[in-house]
Order: sequence, then structure tokens, then C-alpha cells
Amino acid sequence: MKSPINVGVVGATGVVDETFLRLLETRDFPFKNLKLFASTRSLGQKRRVRGQDYPVEGLSEDCFKGLDVVFFSSGDDISKEWAPQAAQAGAYAIDNSAAFRMSSRHELIVPEVNGSALPSSPTIIANPNCSTIQLVVALNSLKDFGLKSVHVASYQAVSGAGAPGQADLRAALQEDLQHAEDPITERQKTSEVFGKTAAFNCIPKIGSFDEYVFCSEEMKIINETKKILALPDLKISAFTVRIPSWNGHAEAVWFELEKDVTRAQVLEALGRQDGLKVLETLTAFETPRELSGRNEVSVSRVQKDVTGGHHWRMWVVADNLLKGAALNGIQIAEKLLDSSLDS
Amino acid sequence: MKSPINVGVVGATGVVDETFLRLLETRDFPFKNLKLFASTRSLGQKRRVRGQDYPVEGLSEDCFKGLDVVFFSSGDDISKEWAPQAAQAGAYAIDNSAAFRMSSRHELIVPEVNGSALPSSPTIIANPNCSTIQLVVALNSLKDFGLKSVHVASYQAVSGAGAPGQADLRAALQEDLQHAEDPITERQKTSEVFGKTAAFNCIPKIGSFDEYVFCSEEMKIINETKKILALPDLKISAFTVRIPSWNGHAEAVWFELEKDVTRAQVLEALGRQDGLKVLETLTAFETPRELSGRNEVSVSRVQKDVTGGHHWRMWVVADNLLKGAALNGIQIAEKLLDSSLDS
Repeated sequence: MKSPINVGVVGATGVVDETFLRLLETRDFPFKNLKLFASTRSLGQKRRVRGQDYPVEGLSEDCFKGLDVVFFSSGDDISKEWAPQAAQAGAYAIDNSAAFRMSSRHELIVPEVNGSALPSSPTIIANPNCSTIQLVVALNSLKDFGLKSVHVASYQAVSGAGAPGQADLRAALQEDLQHAEDPITERQKTSEVFGKTAAFNCIPKIGSFDEYVFCSEEMKIINETKKILALPDLKISAFTVRIPSWNGHAEAVWFELEKDVTRAQVLEALGRQDGLKVLETLTAFETPRELSGRNEVSVSRVQKDVTGGHHWRMWVVADNLLKGAALNGIQIAEKLLDSSLDS
Repeated sequence: MKSPINVGVVGATGVVDETFLRLLETRDFPFKNLKLFASTRSLGQKRRVRGQDYPVEGLSEDCFKGLDVVFFSSGDDISKEWAPQAAQAGAYAIDNSAAFRMSSRHELIVPEVNGSALPSSPTIIANPNCSTIQLVVALNSLKDFGLKSVHVASYQAVSGAGAPGQADLRAALQEDLQHAEDPITERQKTSEVFGKTAAFNCIPKIGSFDEYVFCSEEMKIINETKKILALPDLKISAFTVRIPSWNGHAEAVWFELEKDVTRAQVLEALGRQDGLKVLETLTAFETPRELSGRNEVSVSRVQKDVTGGHHWRMWVVADNLLKGAALNGIQIAEKLLDSSLDS
């Protein structure tokens, strides 16, 4: 692949690909041509990138011809149908959907964790789930101490459900706040996006229930973390909960290590991890609101657990639209570009 | 103690004791005289209970004379000073503060869990922390299977910080929602109540940090649960997080049992527990908003964990002002009344 490259973006009308386009601008991503694709509903719209208007085109046979990288963020069905065609046409298809993540024939990449697994010829590369990415960035360097088990409880923002999720929360809150006394007078308030309203509430279900009756979001964290960290036998469990935060996911994480290590050693390991900001002061922490718009993953409250043994805990926060989605995709493409420049 | 009794309420101008007064009315609690006490700031105010106005009096020597039960909900300092005087004056002092909870000379009571430990002569009886109460109601019957370890991540409403917490969230949201595009434009927004704003955010710190740099809320859950369940060696850890929900605390709970049991056996045990509503359908769950205003603790998503072994998980929700505070205090008093009627 030579720089600058020809880029396609599929699904160019959502909140994640809006972030993609913004990143293409702000990171000086070396693109030559840019092609935007979307469902028929959005055809004819134009999107402005680096001062130039690009039309939103429909997906069609040969539409990927001449493209080097195509970013997909239109959901599983579109990716299943079109990502193989992009790869067939000679492009790296960087796919933000869940369609190929657990396929043994495709790599699931967080560049600063398992970037060395990047393929060297055009194919589909899977971009992990948002809540997985920030978790593996925080856990990766702890593998040196023997990672035995992980429990993660998530606090996930409505931006994870895209612009409709944010609009839904905003409308529900505005309605609730009209009640001067008790804003939650309507206890059973429902939501088209979340089922039960997220306003002044929290919901222990993200995605759909699978055959084991875990949420799809929980199984994504569990399975993708094992794959990315290359720890197929890791004992990991996740409890995923939607809360009425706007953007940025947080995770309360317990982990058990094989080795007997000090806090200084754990902090030193975390400090070596690219893309991770470590707050060493025990009383310091960052919140989703503070991480919103930032590129790194933040880890704080790293401390040995009161239960003793080799049990530890930490608080992990990141922008789920940036590092949790679009930024990680762009970083995959940047790493591909670097590799080709190196060789 | 004879029915009806003379009742005192100390701290009669906060959100918990407002709930106390409402419960005294709605539960037909058999009180004869009612005396309301508060700090000097609130003196001269009147509160209406069962159609009668009661003046708010100051605390003074002999003010508890003739009272059978005095409810305290004015914080640790007031309780430390005045609860012993109430007991000295011949009243059961039911204390909602943390002042006496971990004292070996005082009982820490959730009636449907360890009501048999209620003392039979006037003394101070401690009412546990809100997030502890709902947890022990859910865990109690599981002791039969040998409770080995518990991990709890909490999702706690702003009502836990009283009326100022609710007012703070309301004002912050109203301000944020004036921004038509991005309500969290002010990323570093602070709060006088929560430190960092709870609006569209979550905060991994409730209470103050102790010498181990765990939150006081975390240590309350850990220590009080061991005491109430009479399991001093239970391996229990808590991660407590404030979220922008209005009222009602939720808990994601992992627990490990000694025995090899089926889901049917676990549900059967939970079903035997007074005060606990069990949602058996695997896909069913309740949220803080739905529990707000209700008396029971709700447990759902009870299932064996994907990590195998004897590991389980569940979702526990309750109204932190009702079962988590005032209702539990009233139930302690009702149990005292029952005991005296039985004998």
C-alpha cells in the first residue's frame, strides 16, 4: 500500500462514521480519494471533509474498485454482504461491525495490543467492540504477571446506541424535568431505543440476549478479550449496564494475577502500555465526561483488593466513539500504512 | 414496649426522615405521641403528619423523656452525641447513621435477615447502609449453599446524597440540556455535592476515601455485610459508583457458592426470603426507576456465570430511601412492637 491512499467509508451517516470523517481531517490521514457509501435512504446527501463536498453513493458492484482501505460501520448485515467484496476488490476492509470479529479466519485488532497480527495483504480486519477495546488496552501489559481472572461491570453511555440513543435520552430527560417535584413520576417509562428509559435510570441489558441469556454486549467483551489477548482460557465475566451518561464508557474491573507483585510493579507495567494514561495517585480518577473527545484510555484506582491474595481492581474509562470505535479503526489503517512504508 | 408507642424523629427536615414521616402515616404505625427534633436551623418549622401539625424542636437534655422509639437520621455526629442519651432515657434508638454500625456492642439489623438478633431492652440499634441492606436481603438465603465470595459493583442514585444531591443533578442537567448539540460541552464540570458532576456522567467514589483508599461506601458494604450475615471471613469486594439516576440503587453481583446447586435450587432459596421479589424469567429485569417507591428488593438475571465452577451472578435493585433507609428503620421498630406483643 502506498501513501496517500484511496479511502472508502461505508455507513457515512451515523455517529461513528461522523467520527471517522472528523478523524480523517484532524489526524491528517493521507487520503487521496474519498468515497462515501450509505444505504439508499441517504443517497444524494453530501458530506464536507477538508473543505470539499463528497456525495454519498449507494453500494454497488465494483463500487470499491481502486480503493485501498474501506471502513465499514453500518452493522452486521451490510458488512457481511459488502466487506468481502471490498477485500475481493483489493482493499483492506476495516470492519466495525461484529460480523467477522470471532471468525478464526480474521484478525481482531487493537493496534497497541496485537498490532503485530495485522495481515499483510488485503482482507477483512475486524475492529473490536467499544467496551472490549478499552478493557484490553488496560489488561494487556498485566499478562506479564499471569492474568488468571477478570470481572468487569460496565457503565455505558447512550452514545453507544448512536445518535438515536442520545436523542432518546435528551427527549426523555427534558420531559421528566418538567415535573417540578419528582422527575421520575412515570416509573414505567419506556423507550424505543432502550426498551426501558435510560433517563434517571440504568438498564442491565445491552444488545440482545443470546442463547445463554447473557447480553450480546457481555459475550462480546468475554469472547473478544480472550481472542485479542490470546488467552483462550482466561476466566472472564462481564455485566454490562447502560447508564444515562452521554458519551464515554467506564468499567469497574477486578482481576487476579498469578504472580505476587507490588503496586509499583503493576503501575510500571501499565505505564509501558501505549495508549493508556495511568493515574497513579490513589485518590485520583477520571470520568466518562472527562474522557469524551480524548484519544487515550484512562486507568485509575489501581489497587490491591481488600479480599487479599493476588486480587486487584481498577477503573477504566475511554471515549467509546473514538478509541472504542472510529479511532481504533483509523489507527489500524495508520498501522497498515506504517508497515508498508517500513518495508 | 406497649402499643401504641411514643415516637421521636431526629433530623426531621431531610429526605430520609421525610420518608420516615410518610411511612409512619401510610403504614399505620401505632404511635401515640410524635416528637420531631432537628438542628437549630430548622427550629420553629412545623411538619404535618396524619393531619396534625407537629413542631420541630431542638435537641436538649431530657428531650427524649417518655419516648419508646427514637429514629435518628442526622448523620454520625448527632447520633454519637444524642443516641446514647435516647437509650439512657429508656428508648430504642434506631440509628440510620454509620456511628454504631460496626460497634461490637450494637446490633446491625435488617429484620428479615437477622431480626432474631434484636435486643430486648432499650439500646441503640444500627440501621445499615442503603447499598448493604439490599445486598444482604438478596444474599441471605444463599448462605445455605455456602457463600464463599461476593463481588458487587453498584449503580447508585443521587438521592443517596439527599435533597441536595437531587437538586444538584437537576440543575446540572437543565444547564447542560441548553446546549442544542453537545450537552457535555463543559467536560470538567464540577459539583458542590459530588465533586465532579454526576450529570451525563458517573463517579467511582461515594463518600470519602479511607486509609486504604477505598471509598467509605465500599467499606460499609464490605464490613456491614460480613456482620449482618455473620460471615466474618466472607471474601467480599465492592466497587461503588454514583450514576445520574434519580432514586433507587442497583447492584451487579457475582457470588461463588461452596455447593454444586442448580438454578432451580438457587431460585427456590431466593423465593423463601422475605422482602425479596424474584424475577425468575431469565430475560426479565427491573430498574431503579421501577423500584423507586416500592418496599421490596428486586432480584433478577440470576444465572450461573460463564466462567463455570460454582460462580453465579444476579442484578439487585431497591429504593435506597425506603428499604435502604427509612423503611428498614420502621421495620425494626415494627419487629420490636411484634416481639413485645408476642411476649
